[in-house]
Amino acid sequence: MAISMTVRAGNIFADVSAGSRAEEAVSEIVARPRLRIERIVSQGQASPPGFWFDQAWNEWVIVLKGSATLQFEDEPGTRALDAGDYVFIPARKRHRVGWTDPQQPTVWLAVHFE
Amino acid sequence: MAISMTVRAGNIFADVSAGSRAEEAVSEIVARPRLRIERIVSQGQASPPGFWFDQAWNEWVIVLKGSATLQFEDEPGTRALDAGDYVFIPARKRHRVGWTDPQQPTVWLAVHFE
Repeated sequence: MAISMTVRAGNIFADVSAGSRAEEAVSEIVARPRLRIERIVSQGQASPPGFWFDQAWNEWVIVLKGSATLQFEDEPGTRALDAGDYVFIPARKRHRVGWTDPQQPTVWLAVHFE
Repeated sequence: MAISMTVRAGNIFADVSAGSRAEEAVSEIVARPRLRIERIVSQGQASPPGFWFDQAWNEWVIVLKGSATLQFEDEPGTRALDAGDYVFIPARKRHRVGWTDPQQPTVWLAVHFE
């Protein structure tokens, strides 16, 4: 089996449009059977009211630019995330995005894994 | 089996000392059998001359602050990495850190995986 020696490279802040958009923009950076690394760019979006992510996999997520809030169903408050803030979300931990800054793009890096 | 529902959180830029240090500071953020996420803080360090990392696992690495250069044995030049620049390094791709900024901490986020 030939092993690819290609080095894929880029900048996580590239093509982050300044304008608000209707939907979050998700870009896959690494995709493996048990691992997915993706960039998510939000600007003003949030999870729908009453909606909770309930994932079968673990997620480690970091905000690299902008700001957002995360909510966990079993926590009374909200977690504010600014640049550099990361959270490990175990599988089945119900969570939602409460808010993302409408004034600037928020760039998330998410690592999904089994 | 009890599943931990603890959310581990932090800031990737926390406790990044401004002073130069003798060695790189490596902090493990996520450690699983097939996945390791770590923060590396460099300030002026580089791989020893002639030394090449030759890893049995894949690595996806991003510079979040500062600047550095990476070299690959099969490439003539050097790759400059500034904030936001990322590189996927397949297993067995021989590489080394050519330089890290001696004037400021360089913060790397590395995801090692099978």
